[in-house]
Amino acid sequence: MEEMVVALDTMWLLLAAFLVFFMQAGFALLEAGATRSKNAVNILMKNLMDFCIAALTFWMIGWGFAYGASAGGFIGVDQFFLGYDAAEAGGVPILASWLFQVVFAGTAATIVSGALAERTKFSSYLIVSAVMAVLIYPVVVHWVWSGAGWLSDLGFTDFAGSTVVHSVGGWAALMGAIVLGARIGRFSKDGKSQPIPGHNISLVGLGVFILWLGWFGFNPGSQLALSSQADANAVALVAVNTTLAAAAAAVATIIFTWIRTGKPDPNLTLNSVIGGLVAITAPCAFVTPVGAVIIGLVAGPLLVFSTSWLESLKIDDPVGAVPAHLVNGVWGTLALGLFAAIEGNTGTLGLFYGGGMALLIAQAIGVVAVGVWTVVLSGALFYALKATIGLRVSKEEEELGLDLGEHGVAAYPDFIPTPTPGMAPPAPPSGGVSRAPAK
Amino acid sequence: MEEMVVALDTMWLLLAAFLVFFMQAGFALLEAGATRSKNAVNILMKNLMDFCIAALTFWMIGWGFAYGASAGGFIGVDQFFLGYDAAEAGGVPILASWLFQVVFAGTAATIVSGALAERTKFSSYLIVSAVMAVLIYPVVVHWVWSGAGWLSDLGFTDFAGSTVVHSVGGWAALMGAIVLGARIGRFSKDGKSQPIPGHNISLVGLGVFILWLGWFGFNPGSQLALSSQADANAVALVAVNTTLAAAAAAVATIIFTWIRTGKPDPNLTLNSVIGGLVAITAPCAFVTPVGAVIIGLVAGPLLVFSTSWLESLKIDDPVGAVPAHLVNGVWGTLALGLFAAIEGNTGTLGLFYGGGMALLIAQAIGVVAVGVWTVVLSGALFYALKATIGLRVSKEEEELGLDLGEHGVAAYPDFIPTPTPGMAPPAPPSGGVSRAPAK
Amino acid sequence: MEEMVVALDTMWLLLAAFLVFFMQAGFALLEAGATRSKNAVNILMKNLMDFCIAALTFWMIGWGFAYGASAGGFIGVDQFFLGYDAAEAGGVPILASWLFQVVFAGTAATIVSGALAERTKFSSYLIVSAVMAVLIYPVVVHWVWSGAGWLSDLGFTDFAGSTVVHSVGGWAALMGAIVLGARIGRFSKDGKSQPIPGHNISLVGLGVFILWLGWFGFNPGSQLALSSQADANAVALVAVNTTLAAAAAAVATIIFTWIRTGKPDPNLTLNSVIGGLVAITAPCAFVTPVGAVIIGLVAGPLLVFSTSWLESLKIDDPVGAVPAHLVNGVWGTLALGLFAAIEGNTGTLGLFYGGGMALLIAQAIGVVAVGVWTVVLSGALFYALKATIGLRVSKEEEELGLDLGEHGVAAYPDFIPTPTPGMAPPAPPSGGVSRAPAK
Repeated sequence: MEEMVVALDTMWLLLAAFLVFFMQAGFALLEAGATRSKNAVNILMKNLMDFCIAALTFWMIGWGFAYGASAGGFIGVDQFFLGYDAAEAGGVPILASWLFQVVFAGTAATIVSGALAERTKFSSYLIVSAVMAVLIYPVVVHWVWSGAGWLSDLGFTDFAGSTVVHSVGGWAALMGAIVLGARIGRFSKDGKSQPIPGHNISLVGLGVFILWLGWFGFNPGSQLALSSQADANAVALVAVNTTLAAAAAAVATIIFTWIRTGKPDPNLTLNSVIGGLVAITAPCAFVTPVGAVIIGLVAGPLLVFSTSWLESLKIDDPVGAVPAHLVNGVWGTLALGLFAAIEGNTGTLGLFYGGGMALLIAQAIGVVAVGVWTVVLSGALFYALKATIGLRVSKEEEELGLDLGEHGVAAYPDFIPTPTPGMAPPAPPSGGVSRAPAK
Repeated sequence: MEEMVVALDTMWLLLAAFLVFFMQAGFALLEAGATRSKNAVNILMKNLMDFCIAALTFWMIGWGFAYGASAGGFIGVDQFFLGYDAAEAGGVPILASWLFQVVFAGTAATIVSGALAERTKFSSYLIVSAVMAVLIYPVVVHWVWSGAGWLSDLGFTDFAGSTVVHSVGGWAALMGAIVLGARIGRFSKDGKSQPIPGHNISLVGLGVFILWLGWFGFNPGSQLALSSQADANAVALVAVNTTLAAAAAAVATIIFTWIRTGKPDPNLTLNSVIGGLVAITAPCAFVTPVGAVIIGLVAGPLLVFSTSWLESLKIDDPVGAVPAHLVNGVWGTLALGLFAAIEGNTGTLGLFYGGGMALLIAQAIGVVAVGVWTVVLSGALFYALKATIGLRVSKEEEELGLDLGEHGVAAYPDFIPTPTPGMAPPAPPSGGVSRAPAK
Repeated sequence: MEEMVVALDTMWLLLAAFLVFFMQAGFALLEAGATRSKNAVNILMKNLMDFCIAALTFWMIGWGFAYGASAGGFIGVDQFFLGYDAAEAGGVPILASWLFQVVFAGTAATIVSGALAERTKFSSYLIVSAVMAVLIYPVVVHWVWSGAGWLSDLGFTDFAGSTVVHSVGGWAALMGAIVLGARIGRFSKDGKSQPIPGHNISLVGLGVFILWLGWFGFNPGSQLALSSQADANAVALVAVNTTLAAAAAAVATIIFTWIRTGKPDPNLTLNSVIGGLVAITAPCAFVTPVGAVIIGLVAGPLLVFSTSWLESLKIDDPVGAVPAHLVNGVWGTLALGLFAAIEGNTGTLGLFYGGGMALLIAQAIGVVAVGVWTVVLSGALFYALKATIGLRVSKEEEELGLDLGEHGVAAYPDFIPTPTPGMAPPAPPSGGVSRAPAK
């Protein structure tokens, strides 16, 4: 009987981890499709390698910083290389827990990628991924999820990571976008915004569906168990809230952009699904479905406004990572304080109750503390890279595209690219069958 | 012990729901890839928003119509907004059941999309989705799966929805295609069929694989439990029958088209996988593997013939939704009556036995009743939309493409489109970096 | 209680089978993206139909050869058409086991596809798939996994199929590539290698992510059970080792190619993920995470070297199936002998211990025996096809592309293809709306 509880919880944790792993593909497609074809290979390599690097470094060090014995509630200091006692006593295997955690680390790392797209040196990007997975993210995990962290001791609550995962990724994305500066041509000389359309919205759409699917591992999996009636109730509520918040965010955004611009905007609507999912991630286990719908309805327009706001500040975030992950990560974390039901989240239409002012203050402290930590660390990292090996590719390489520049290949050599005014057509891939560009 | 049964059944139901949710991506890719590049964004938005709208409306109203207390076996009349007693007694959480049902509602709604592709006003499409999810589909669910429906009382049987989901979607697709009329250029002035090739068969192929994967949630999940030996036997049989029927349909179709036209036809073969899956959906728990193979072998050629038949009627169904979902939905529902084993569906090669004439008659009554209901309701809806806000975009917009027309963006701005004779090249996306079309 | 063990094990087995099934999509995208756009439809059809044919033939015959009553440890001789006793006694249903096995058969069959890409007659390919699924693969399964095979009696060990699945597919791929000869233009007249770039690296990237996801079914699922503490420990270890080996292979390859050629190579790095996954497949349940990382670190450079080596032999393997599946299948099988821990694989950083010389010798015998069997059978098959119905399409068809040649359609009719020097532009798809190629 006890063994079957272990088996059930392990199965749930592993299956959820597999789903969250698949989110890497979703992020890769979203970012690749939302940017230009000349950078697609680079983006795929970034999104593959950040996970691979996160896996190795989180195994070596990150897990220990997150879940090792606590040094004052700030950082873990053992369990490096998963070096626990080999004669494990039983229970859900620590390796299953590690797998579920490493895919979260990979998510936090890969969120940064989108904001740096189309102009970041590949080598610098890989260093950023390693530092995210080994230090910046694990320390925040220790604060909130280790059981011994100072933030959770304060009462800060984040069920599946609106703050711990998404706003950490989002803050680092923001700092990266600021330090890098905008892509060439993104803003005209007189400061006017000139959107750069993505090269394949079908891939963006597929990416969004894959991310939504993966979120069914991210949120329901964060119950970490599914072997009792209470687990079943919690997991079902989480899955339903996740669905409703994402749907509400998309519906709110499409209506909102339709009214605002006369047309239902595909890019903002697609990104608002991510925004709604991020926002429900912290509160999903603590609010009623009505609360989830409200959280999603707010998440959508919030994403639209913050997208415009970033643009007005001349911050170039090619895929909208900051509005989706940072702004809605903060919103979701605070929303937990506003809408958490006092007891029994069983989905009635009845009233919802906030968790009281104490909870709301704890949430706000957590948002600020995690923000300061991530801004300082990631900011220092980006400036250090800029001052040493360089953060940004050359102007020539940016115009040529990072696929040829960083990797020496083209993503789509069989099709004739649209000429860009004032720019030479891309060279044929070196080493390939010669393919003369069209006259 | 009892708790673990609940946990197991809940886990199975939720995982199956996640897989069925992913079918939305499959339908989106299938439809987008099978049509022209100038409409890809619109198709992705349709397939995203129909699920989002279905989620919200099925939460508010649709679930209550389907599973609320029965008014005479025809419609449910409570449980709106999932408003059940908050102090739930235990068992598989109603929220888990809701999630499994809402993804089915999304499937029923999205099936319609394909038949309306490349010419339907976005706003009208969204209204159709809402009506499908809130009224047309839930009432049929009530008739068959609520436990109190008049059709199930008659003996009508549909394990996972050949009729309840697929033929409902298929009938509405047929009505939509008829009321809309064919796409410009689909039939020449003298009535000759002029197929319009899809713009990305790789996406179609991926869509079919994703749909097949999702069907492993759709059919095996419809056992609604996996916590006993009987459940394990049933679910395994269902999964195997699903696999064999799809494979048999594809093999039959490729051979059949090879003989008929001299080449193995990719579009019909890809669609026949869907046809085979639809056909096995009703009978999958009641027939032997031999029966499943026979059902698939018939489903393929049936799809080929019905595709030709629609074409000869000048009904333009761009992705073949009617042959796959309606024709094979009917076939699968009747096949249940023909091939249902009398006892023990354990996969022997032995004889299979029909369920007797009573069952076959009940199946036929169900097919007709659901057809009449859906044709009348959806037909009235399409005509009402046509007479009011309009169902079809303007001729100019249809030629320009719905991506620019409805959404103001292009799916693939980085590549030069093939010129269409007598049509101006698509304008560059407004608001984007200026990209001069090739001379 | 006993029933719930059955339910849990069945659930795990089925879910793992669904994930492995999805690998078909991964292989299809990997192969399609890594080759030219003029062959994409053909590649999708190959990857769809090989599974469909494998499903039907493995149901009819292959399963019986693999798991029927043993004739001297060499081949099974009953259970054709799954013709077991209908009154099954209980336990995990044989149909669930069949589903888990048939997706492995599909994998073994589809591995061959990549090496034959862009020049193989479709009809011949289908015959190869059938023979793989019905004879070549099942006999090896019988040797190793049936419980009565001569190789397992010797002590040969292969947890999830580095040899049984991947090297079988890899040897057949090698024989096919040799018998077919290189694609036109792949090597210049003076023997210089002229790489032919793939047409869509985004699809390759997605394919790799899907394959990695599917491998979480392939390896952890091969425990065949998840209902006890021991199962949970084993499955968690397998999942972690799978992750770490793949990540290590990618990191090793990107560093290695960066140093070797000055740029981080995307194609080799993407393929090295597959190589790492293949290598860890045999030993994943028997090595520590440290061992898994070492196995992956070796797998990457091994893939790079063997790719060059094949090239120097003028063997044209368009997607690198032989380096990934054969070379790393052999490596992983031997690595099991080198790194298998003597007891308790609980992931300590501590020492790992080889399984001793006896195990290593058994592994080597298995590698050779399976190689000889597959080389002889598949070689005979390829030569027989070449001598009868023909293995290769005509020179004209190869240049035109197999999409138009074999299937009469184009994958991407909406985009203007890059002209190939000395080659006429592809004709518009017959039967479609006329689309004049660009001047």
